[in-house]
Amino acid sequence: MDYIIGHKNPDTDSIMSVIVLADFFKKMGKTLIPGRIGEVNDESKWALEKFSLEIPKKVEYNENDKYFLVDHNAPEQTIDNLKEEQILGVIDHHKISIKTSIPIFYHAEPLGCTCSILYKMYKKEGFEISKEIAGAMLSAILSDTVIFKSPTTTEEDRKIAEELAKIAGIEDIEEFGLELKKQNMQISKLSDEEIITRDLKENTKDGYKFAIGQIEVIGDEILKRKESLLKKMEEIAKERGYRFLILAITDIIKEGSYLFVVGDLEVPEKAFGKFENGMIWLDGVMSRKKQITPPIMNA
Amino acid sequence: MDYIIGHKNPDTDSIMSVIVLADFFKKMGKTLIPGRIGEVNDESKWALEKFSLEIPKKVEYNENDKYFLVDHNAPEQTIDNLKEEQILGVIDHHKISIKTSIPIFYHAEPLGCTCSILYKMYKKEGFEISKEIAGAMLSAILSDTVIFKSPTTTEEDRKIAEELAKIAGIEDIEEFGLELKKQNMQISKLSDEEIITRDLKENTKDGYKFAIGQIEVIGDEILKRKESLLKKMEEIAKERGYRFLILAITDIIKEGSYLFVVGDLEVPEKAFGKFENGMIWLDGVMSRKKQITPPIMNA
Repeated sequence: MDYIIGHKNPDTDSIMSVIVLADFFKKMGKTLIPGRIGEVNDESKWALEKFSLEIPKKVEYNENDKYFLVDHNAPEQTIDNLKEEQILGVIDHHKISIKTSIPIFYHAEPLGCTCSILYKMYKKEGFEISKEIAGAMLSAILSDTVIFKSPTTTEEDRKIAEELAKIAGIEDIEEFGLELKKQNMQISKLSDEEIITRDLKENTKDGYKFAIGQIEVIGDEILKRKESLLKKMEEIAKERGYRFLILAITDIIKEGSYLFVVGDLEVPEKAFGKFENGMIWLDGVMSRKKQITPPIMNA
Repeated sequence: MDYIIGHKNPDTDSIMSVIVLADFFKKMGKTLIPGRIGEVNDESKWALEKFSLEIPKKVEYNENDKYFLVDHNAPEQTIDNLKEEQILGVIDHHKISIKTSIPIFYHAEPLGCTCSILYKMYKKEGFEISKEIAGAMLSAILSDTVIFKSPTTTEEDRKIAEELAKIAGIEDIEEFGLELKKQNMQISKLSDEEIITRDLKENTKDGYKFAIGQIEVIGDEILKRKESLLKKMEEIAKERGYRFLILAITDIIKEGSYLFVVGDLEVPEKAFGKFENGMIWLDGVMSRKKQITPPIMNA
């Protein structure tokens, strides 16, 4: 079988991109099955329901299957055991982390969201976009760009979102975006472990592993749980062999992030300055991809 | 300034792709200057003249300039000192060798030639292709696919070449291809050093460097120069610090390659079997990208 999959711990872009790309391929006369390799979060569930879309199928690795990767390319973030001969293609908006020994189809653009790239593909082929697919893409863009507040947002993402809102019948984009983003913010419902691992991305650098998690919030409520969060982070870092583990708590109204850190502080402090009791506030920092991972990689 | 550049030791695909992509961008309303970072070979010169095209400008690195890379992505093969912030984009048909710490525009397809990808871009945008540009693309496809004999050739490359031949006014594609390929085969005019370095690609693996050169021939004439070629290869490998240096002598009629090798034989012999006096014949092997580099990388 041929599957389309997003990354582990899929966010709304990873979930919607597989659905949208499957629809696109259908219009091209090809059958690929929308899949996922992790659990669907509350935000994605809410958007799927709103636009009458089905949850993509949970996919287990099989050496006879092939996979089209969306919204990721790093080997650590894709389905385990994947061989490069099984990659049907990649459509992504992240830095390039994969190396191959054969040529593959790979398309990446520095846009705020994979679905913005997919929208451009529909336009180039002259394909019509249904209300449901427009809603899926719009949700992904608003989610990934944090309602256009993330510095990853481009003018193109904004324009595309406006076009999509018309098709999807969304009158107030900001209001819709806030309602969408709030779905993942019911922090009191989440255990410490869920807060840390729900959107955790592993990286490898010079032979050691580290990980950066991110959670979006409105307000300081979560800081009350700092001690128990740090304790759980230490457990997870030890278990999984991370040199350090960062949790970015991004306040989408205040527009900045608290970073919590455990493990070896050398690289994180070189990147961001001194942490006080395992914490630092970074004003204006909202994007892991653009503002947290690169300073770490360079440090 | 914004430049488009192919790889070091540019072949016809690298030369034509910069010209074609500059024409494409012009139609998009953008000005990029077609450039090159190495000398133009006889084959490319012949094709440029045939289709009344100018030789791209020789480009020197400048930290204030930006560069769109075509037909390559490996750091060893691009302009020296290039920083990732200077990369405007990549359009390529090779394996992925670049890693970035930021998202960039990157488009690759497993086709026989970069110009086949560019042709599809014209089609998607609905742009007209002039006779000159069609001739440039056709020359690149016939050169890179060795007149469709290389295993890198896809059905798509063939169809695209047929379309382009009509626009370019080429009636017999095979005959045109053979005339084109012969331009680079005047071996007697070339010094040993030119034969080895004219199309030499450096690679890095596990911290050591190696290089694979390729020259296309018809007939066994070149084998008479084996001893002096091996001696010169040893000099070059020593000078440049290669763990080993391979020269692939590809007979486009016999459809196979002699490999000459100097340096540490461990990896080359693991990949291809025992070399006799520094040489091995590999039947059916015509593509460095698909049949020579991958076994080396895996060995």
